[in-house]
Amino acid sequence: MSKMNLAMLCDFYEFTMANGYFKNGMYKKNVYFDVFFRKVPDDGGFAITAGLEQVIDYLKNLRFYEEDIEYLRSKGIFDEEFLAYLRDFRFTGDVYAIPEGTPVFPNEPVLTVKAPAIEAQLIETFVLLCLNHQSLIATKANRIVRAAQGRAVIEFGSRRAQGASGAVVGARAAYIGGCVGTACTLTDELYGVPAGGTMAHSWVQMFDNEYEAFKTFVELYPDNPTLLVDTYNTLKSGVPNAIKVFKEVLLPMGKTRCAIRLDSGDISYLSKKARKMLDDEGLTDCKITASNALDEKLIRDLMMQGAQVDTFGVGERLITSQSSPVFGGVYKLVAVENDAGEIEPKIKVSENTAKIPVPHFKKVYRYYDNESGKALADELCVFDEVVDDSKNHIIFDPNATWKTKELYNFTARELMKPIFQNGVCVYQSPSIQEIADYCREQVDLLWDEVKRFENPHSYYVDISERLYEIRSILLSVHKM
Amino acid sequence: MSKMNLAMLCDFYEFTMANGYFKNGMYKKNVYFDVFFRKVPDDGGFAITAGLEQVIDYLKNLRFYEEDIEYLRSKGIFDEEFLAYLRDFRFTGDVYAIPEGTPVFPNEPVLTVKAPAIEAQLIETFVLLCLNHQSLIATKANRIVRAAQGRAVIEFGSRRAQGASGAVVGARAAYIGGCVGTACTLTDELYGVPAGGTMAHSWVQMFDNEYEAFKTFVELYPDNPTLLVDTYNTLKSGVPNAIKVFKEVLLPMGKTRCAIRLDSGDISYLSKKARKMLDDEGLTDCKITASNALDEKLIRDLMMQGAQVDTFGVGERLITSQSSPVFGGVYKLVAVENDAGEIEPKIKVSENTAKIPVPHFKKVYRYYDNESGKALADELCVFDEVVDDSKNHIIFDPNATWKTKELYNFTARELMKPIFQNGVCVYQSPSIQEIADYCREQVDLLWDEVKRFENPHSYYVDISERLYEIRSILLSVHKM
Repeated sequence: MSKMNLAMLCDFYEFTMANGYFKNGMYKKNVYFDVFFRKVPDDGGFAITAGLEQVIDYLKNLRFYEEDIEYLRSKGIFDEEFLAYLRDFRFTGDVYAIPEGTPVFPNEPVLTVKAPAIEAQLIETFVLLCLNHQSLIATKANRIVRAAQGRAVIEFGSRRAQGASGAVVGARAAYIGGCVGTACTLTDELYGVPAGGTMAHSWVQMFDNEYEAFKTFVELYPDNPTLLVDTYNTLKSGVPNAIKVFKEVLLPMGKTRCAIRLDSGDISYLSKKARKMLDDEGLTDCKITASNALDEKLIRDLMMQGAQVDTFGVGERLITSQSSPVFGGVYKLVAVENDAGEIEPKIKVSENTAKIPVPHFKKVYRYYDNESGKALADELCVFDEVVDDSKNHIIFDPNATWKTKELYNFTARELMKPIFQNGVCVYQSPSIQEIADYCREQVDLLWDEVKRFENPHSYYVDISERLYEIRSILLSVHKM
Repeated sequence: MSKMNLAMLCDFYEFTMANGYFKNGMYKKNVYFDVFFRKVPDDGGFAITAGLEQVIDYLKNLRFYEEDIEYLRSKGIFDEEFLAYLRDFRFTGDVYAIPEGTPVFPNEPVLTVKAPAIEAQLIETFVLLCLNHQSLIATKANRIVRAAQGRAVIEFGSRRAQGASGAVVGARAAYIGGCVGTACTLTDELYGVPAGGTMAHSWVQMFDNEYEAFKTFVELYPDNPTLLVDTYNTLKSGVPNAIKVFKEVLLPMGKTRCAIRLDSGDISYLSKKARKMLDDEGLTDCKITASNALDEKLIRDLMMQGAQVDTFGVGERLITSQSSPVFGGVYKLVAVENDAGEIEPKIKVSENTAKIPVPHFKKVYRYYDNESGKALADELCVFDEVVDDSKNHIIFDPNATWKTKELYNFTARELMKPIFQNGVCVYQSPSIQEIADYCREQVDLLWDEVKRFENPHSYYVDISERLYEIRSILLSVHKM
């Protein structure tokens, strides 16, 4: 049993700053932080947001125990009053977020926190970690699933994951992104993601010969057994022995559902040869599963070459998002409540214009074309702006303001939902199956151009005129 | 508080196989599995093994609880006798392993399990995950630390880690690899890796101006404060304000230890300019910390360009080993005890010769040159072979047997230590500091040629003549 107090999974500077806010009374000041990202992994056209359910659990259970307080005291830099404050610490703020499984784009908030300064600061590290990790894996899984064009994709990568939660929670995110299951038993037990699996090479090696190993297995699990056929020689030994056992044991029981798994060699060549051998023996219901260093690019190529694969088992390249293993979500202060209770937008200037966050407490609209149903653009607005989709609406690019687009016959949908109000969770997380279904539906509403792997079309994320003006004023104030 | 029963962090096929072994009585058969890897991440010359302490914790506490049994029962494929067996399950086997912090090489066992088949099978996923993850991060950290040539490196990456344990345990592994500390508070609390940190941009934004933000901070933490100087403009505002505050607040207190942190822009240019500005004002004790997308390649270049950086804060590129995020350790059956209690070596044939594991229960020798002290080669031997280092000793390359090398005036050291005997832990883990020190010492004993980043020399991992013969016989048996 592994136990961790996630409240302490926190960059140390959150504590030094929190102690500072406490001492100078700033800790009661309400602040607004946005979580957003600047670049989609693998240079893709969109990401899938995931991890909100674990953020909710974390915020609900956020507290510091005596051993944590004792540890902090031992550092010799924190005030006793601050440590006493931590002892009774609870999250009391508001959270808004885009639901899990939604396609999201660079520079739009996926989660906004409004909370007293200390609280907003202390949750930074974990909130980012959680959303970054699961969004990374959900996004990668969605790419791989799209490459498989309807063939099933199973997550297989626990042993190569970056730590225990990398495996367990990663497999949850992979399911949100479109995988049909996982090899990770704990992910099934905890999150209801269907786990499955049959045999490793070691099973085959434990018996005197491959035939005995297969026969014993099929006798044990006659309902849809999968035999691993590459321990010795796939086409000369593995497939013939599998065929023999299926015919001798399975068919006489009146069962025809079964599968073989290829785990080495050239999947395209071997799957076509194996398919023919199986079909020639009448085993047309026998499926072929393939694994071994698969990712969206190899699967796309295999599909193009007509590989006879029904199920792809994807391991390390999915569970670590190997080709692009970092999701760069950031947590930026966008507004502060002043003493009069008004929201003052804040900005962090950067030498790189693209890195300047959009200030203020915001909402996110997604606009859908009423004819095709497709998503046209997202627009960031000030929290109290309302877009009337019964009228035409002009949007413009914040980095190229002369580029405008007039929307008509469209539906405006607010993406962010209230998650916490005054520290109380007001959101009912959907089931994992509902999230996965929602993700598939929403990805279907994106144009193919946005879904291309290579050089996808940049989906529009525009900002309202009012927000643009606020940003311009703040930038001019900070000009040196 | 996050809780996970790691016993269930297990590929589902381990359970289907275990249930099978249980039913056919094979579960009492002792088997031998090796953990080894085939390729060093980043095409490096060696890896650093890490994660053993967490494997030990896992094996000591390995058990299945009622909810786990209930979950497995709900799958409808497991025998009640097997489920009853799991209820009382304990690990009863032997484990041998190379201690954490040791440089290790492809194709040599870093851990060997001897246990009844079910036990050896059920622990596969977690043992691999744990060693793969921590070895990955320790290896990457060691590369980055070597690039920094004695400048301090701090691990900063929690928010971009792949899951909670990716952050917490990853920071432990980074310390083993040579980092001097971490930003992750929980890693300090749990593992004693020193955590530190000072301020984020949000601290600066919370105040009316940068000067106030800096002043308040230095007054709060006058012992070695670090000021983040890039919120508005590094050279025009950040560094001048830091200098002003250090001179107004710190120096009058008789303190001179302090630092600034650069987190954007060109580190080489900015650090040299900032160094000069600080020195011109007499603040020669003020250190410069740099962060922002650093890795071993950028640090190497910065060092070549004479960047004035005292401490490197390394985030996402370390905690995910971004350029090479998978450590490919595998778990292969190498021997089985037959009914007479003899050890029968086993092999898994592959179409790719390099992927054929070295069979049998083995030991690993490392040979050191008595003159230079440097490591010359490793040799895999059958478990009961003894090398006498008082005599000359000939080793040869198993893939090119005509290449031989005669060793003389050398010391032979066995690398694997007994960790568990009959389920009882017989190993006392060193402190994290001792492991880090040991790692540094052992890396010093490698030739520079093996430590090169680009195209490093392949260190010799040879096999004994006896082992070579055993492998040849097994291969000829499986020839088709």
